[in-house]
Amino acid sequence: MKILITSGGTTEPIDSVRGITNHSTGKLGRELAEIFLKNGASVDFITTKHAVKPATTTNLALHVIQTTRELEEKIKDLLQNNRYTAVIHAMAVSDYRVKSTLERSEFASILSENLQKSKDISQIERTLETLATDNSKNKKISSNAEMLVVTLEKTPKIIQMIKQIQPNTLLVGFKLLVDVPREELLRVGLENLKKNNADFVLANDLTKITNDTHYGMLIENEKNLTEVNTKKEIAEIIFKKIKERGEYYEK
Amino acid sequence: MKILITSGGTTEPIDSVRGITNHSTGKLGRELAEIFLKNGASVDFITTKHAVKPATTTNLALHVIQTTRELEEKIKDLLQNNRYTAVIHAMAVSDYRVKSTLERSEFASILSENLQKSKDISQIERTLETLATDNSKNKKISSNAEMLVVTLEKTPKIIQMIKQIQPNTLLVGFKLLVDVPREELLRVGLENLKKNNADFVLANDLTKITNDTHYGMLIENEKNLTEVNTKKEIAEIIFKKIKERGEYYEK
Repeated sequence: MKILITSGGTTEPIDSVRGITNHSTGKLGRELAEIFLKNGASVDFITTKHAVKPATTTNLALHVIQTTRELEEKIKDLLQNNRYTAVIHAMAVSDYRVKSTLERSEFASILSENLQKSKDISQIERTLETLATDNSKNKKISSNAEMLVVTLEKTPKIIQMIKQIQPNTLLVGFKLLVDVPREELLRVGLENLKKNNADFVLANDLTKITNDTHYGMLIENEKNLTEVNTKKEIAEIIFKKIKERGEYYEK
Repeated sequence: MKILITSGGTTEPIDSVRGITNHSTGKLGRELAEIFLKNGASVDFITTKHAVKPATTTNLALHVIQTTRELEEKIKDLLQNNRYTAVIHAMAVSDYRVKSTLERSEFASILSENLQKSKDISQIERTLETLATDNSKNKKISSNAEMLVVTLEKTPKIIQMIKQIQPNTLLVGFKLLVDVPREELLRVGLENLKKNNADFVLANDLTKITNDTHYGMLIENEKNLTEVNTKKEIAEIIFKKIKERGEYYEK
């Protein structure tokens, strides 16, 4: 059994020393890698610099990335060159990356110039669309400006590329919400499952994650869901489900 | 000898799961703490969650903070209640924090409304000034918007508060530049020394920091500077200087 796991959180650079970071310790990803490795699987593990790594190293290949763009390249490369029983996409991926960074006065001056003919909403939106700055790794924004205006653009949905490249792999997605009722978690989880063409989604809630506990709802479809309360249990239920469905699929 | 060291990098939340992070491992701060602890000093060590901590714990008090605001409160509190021979401010502090986060359409609509009378630059600037969103810890931005417009405001210069509260402490500041010639590093370092009313500034260049090496220029004034090439040497030269000047000052 060969498994691809993503873990940790991406960082999108604002400049050479600042970045927008998705905080993720990587503990759940590590737990997942350990259970598969312990049971004889080989694991490709895509992770980020500050995330924790599995202790077991036999049959483990580590791939360290930083940005969403690097993740996209790495995941495509691995999917094109390997056949995975399952892909478990536990990494917290930036939804947005920096498109432009301008000092307030520069921003106002560009906008004012572009609004000479029309100052309606669509003209403002079009102007925002044209802004783009090179967040080169070799530059650091001067800290003299009183205010900066930053535009962020959506990153591509990497999870949606997985089944496009490898339609027969089992895909496990993750959905993190913040302080919602159980029904809402289920509803958004099911929505997410369909949208990403995933086989399972682990829906969880930031307010129900502590050092010792990690409530999670593994959703397979409207009728099949399992609720667990620790990272270890999350890893165990995902392993069990992949093993059942994966063995069937590998026959 | 009692020393206050700041280390690591602050994070400014965008929402409950995203933040603007100043990447800093805290390795230099740890090296500094170790040399002072080894030589019998007691150390107050302000640091951040992901930064490395000193191995020596005797005479060490750890204070973990996240945001620039929390750093400001903690540093003021410690300076008001302790007398330090020196304050070594090695933490990478966010220059900016998030003031507002809006979807492009919301942003354009607010702006358009505010520009009905005038669309000149100063009116755009005034409108930007009025934007403010609550980056509450309990909310996560929906990831449906194609583009977000974020305004960032300058954070207060915490280093400039240090001598105001404790004028007789020896202050060591840090200035990180990216890929500049030696003369430029010296010029900006001296400027920084005066601006922050510091006794020493350690000027360094991101392109001259690797796992093994860390070029640094410790500047005392136009005529007194020492150049070193590793974190260990940086810690040693700072310890030596503080010891010399601190002993004189403590007599």
